[in-house]
Amino acid sequence: MRSAELIELWRGGQLESLHRGHVVICDKSGVVEAWGKPSQIIFPRSSCKMMQALPLIESGAADAVGLTERQLALSCASHNGARLHVDAVESWLKDLGMGESDLRCGSHMPGDKDENRRLTCSDESPCQYHNNCSGKHAGFLTLNRHLNGGSEYDEVDHPVQQAVKQAFEEVTGETSPGYGIDGCSAPNWSCSLEGLGRAMAAFANPGSDRRGQAMRRLTDAMRKYPEMVAGEGRACTILMRAMNHNVAVKTGAEAVFVGILPEQGLGIALKIRDGATRASEAAITALLVHMGVLEESHPAVGQFLTDPQKNWRGKITGEMRTSAGFPA
Amino acid sequence: MRSAELIELWRGGQLESLHRGHVVICDKSGVVEAWGKPSQIIFPRSSCKMMQALPLIESGAADAVGLTERQLALSCASHNGARLHVDAVESWLKDLGMGESDLRCGSHMPGDKDENRRLTCSDESPCQYHNNCSGKHAGFLTLNRHLNGGSEYDEVDHPVQQAVKQAFEEVTGETSPGYGIDGCSAPNWSCSLEGLGRAMAAFANPGSDRRGQAMRRLTDAMRKYPEMVAGEGRACTILMRAMNHNVAVKTGAEAVFVGILPEQGLGIALKIRDGATRASEAAITALLVHMGVLEESHPAVGQFLTDPQKNWRGKITGEMRTSAGFPA
Repeated sequence: MRSAELIELWRGGQLESLHRGHVVICDKSGVVEAWGKPSQIIFPRSSCKMMQALPLIESGAADAVGLTERQLALSCASHNGARLHVDAVESWLKDLGMGESDLRCGSHMPGDKDENRRLTCSDESPCQYHNNCSGKHAGFLTLNRHLNGGSEYDEVDHPVQQAVKQAFEEVTGETSPGYGIDGCSAPNWSCSLEGLGRAMAAFANPGSDRRGQAMRRLTDAMRKYPEMVAGEGRACTILMRAMNHNVAVKTGAEAVFVGILPEQGLGIALKIRDGATRASEAAITALLVHMGVLEESHPAVGQFLTDPQKNWRGKITGEMRTSAGFPA
Repeated sequence: MRSAELIELWRGGQLESLHRGHVVICDKSGVVEAWGKPSQIIFPRSSCKMMQALPLIESGAADAVGLTERQLALSCASHNGARLHVDAVESWLKDLGMGESDLRCGSHMPGDKDENRRLTCSDESPCQYHNNCSGKHAGFLTLNRHLNGGSEYDEVDHPVQQAVKQAFEEVTGETSPGYGIDGCSAPNWSCSLEGLGRAMAAFANPGSDRRGQAMRRLTDAMRKYPEMVAGEGRACTILMRAMNHNVAVKTGAEAVFVGILPEQGLGIALKIRDGATRASEAAITALLVHMGVLEESHPAVGQFLTDPQKNWRGKITGEMRTSAGFPA
């Protein structure tokens, strides 16, 4: 079984580009619908941040310092580096008696237009608070203080990352084939797409045990504070708002996207083979409409999938389409 | 025959993303080497600008107003919108008694970092001179004045675009299945990848007739002024310089890349199926090394293909590889 044709770009009535990939929809007992190859091994990248945040809650670290629901959302974020996010991470670390230099995620210019412009036009360099993963790292630092671990919390053999690995393997139900170094320097464990989908279904069907409670708190935090999970103009934020906060969705680099549907008890995981974000955003949008949790008439569906493609003069140049058989 | 696996992204020793596509190497008699499907119909997008510029020379329009070799290079450009390019297009049109409002390419923020920063921080809007296709459109306006055509030179039935279509079909040796509207509003005719490769081979083997002379002048202009064809930091400019101006290369949107190798009498054309520029740049780099016109040890090869991928803290996260069997 190989990857499936998922998203197409058409111009002048002719197919111009094509995105293939793998998609699974899972319930608590496994895959209920799939396109492509469920056993495909992938790196979830940032789509598994809610799994990486489980030890933060399960260890008692989050409650020991009274983390808010808004901070829990930020611990699962790939944010825009807007002032909203930068200030939240800065005050979080300040409350812990720590600062920017304790982070190990590195610095990059923020995606947020206003903050990017402010830095660009003032010749100010971005700091580690601007890193889209700084909320996750603030969570790592919070857990690390609770575990009395060393400062190199991003090393693969560090107690923080070993706790993350254990939670990841337990929730995916797999022994990971290995890890890669992510853009923020943290280890990112690989799994099958099916394993990632199973994990999302577990978050959608949380039990009453400690893990179930942690999963529910993280899912609820993401749904309640979509602006903390990504930012204005970003797919995760726009889609969670468009679904009236009923569904949690999260993107990952190289075109991974996951969804947690508590009311349906379903989890979604998808990976576009070529790593194109435009296609992962279009595919998750098509799936959410297919599953009846996103109104087909909502502007977000137009933005990520159905609106005609236009050029600089507003002329229609083409359109994006889902391939035959996807999602239905 | 379907697309071939061409470019891979690896992380932590595992394949993370994969780019498939189609590649042809042609001499004047046809395809000599291919990966994927030579008969694949594609939109060449900006990779065919040297074909779109043929009527500008063949009609006598270029020489009637004494266009320089530098201006001919600009007529084949997808430029960065740096001051260098903006000023050149402005003075070109001024010499013809025309101005920015005569252009029909639309405006977008320039890719050039300095000019982009200047506009961003001064709240100045980009103008049509900044459009990456403004040089091509200056060529269209020059031809249009020579033909005494109407102002809507970008309409498909306009004499300028009909002349472009005729040259395009003659050089590809095909009747185009149709056209799409490009980002700059001009019609972009589709052809087979093989047809595009044949056209590049024709440019690499120019005859002594009017067409051959026009082809030679455009190829030489591109090779002599690589900074006018794209800009600092851009693949076309860097690669033409890296090959000591012996080879002309040109990118097109949605991951098309072509090469004209006069010394070898060969033409290259490639299209990455998913439209990813990172893969089209890596694939053309691999091919140019494969064909012995680009030194494997040149920094440009590292930049577009062989250098390890690093994150914000300079940690190695992975690498780009060519797939088994490509290019050799």
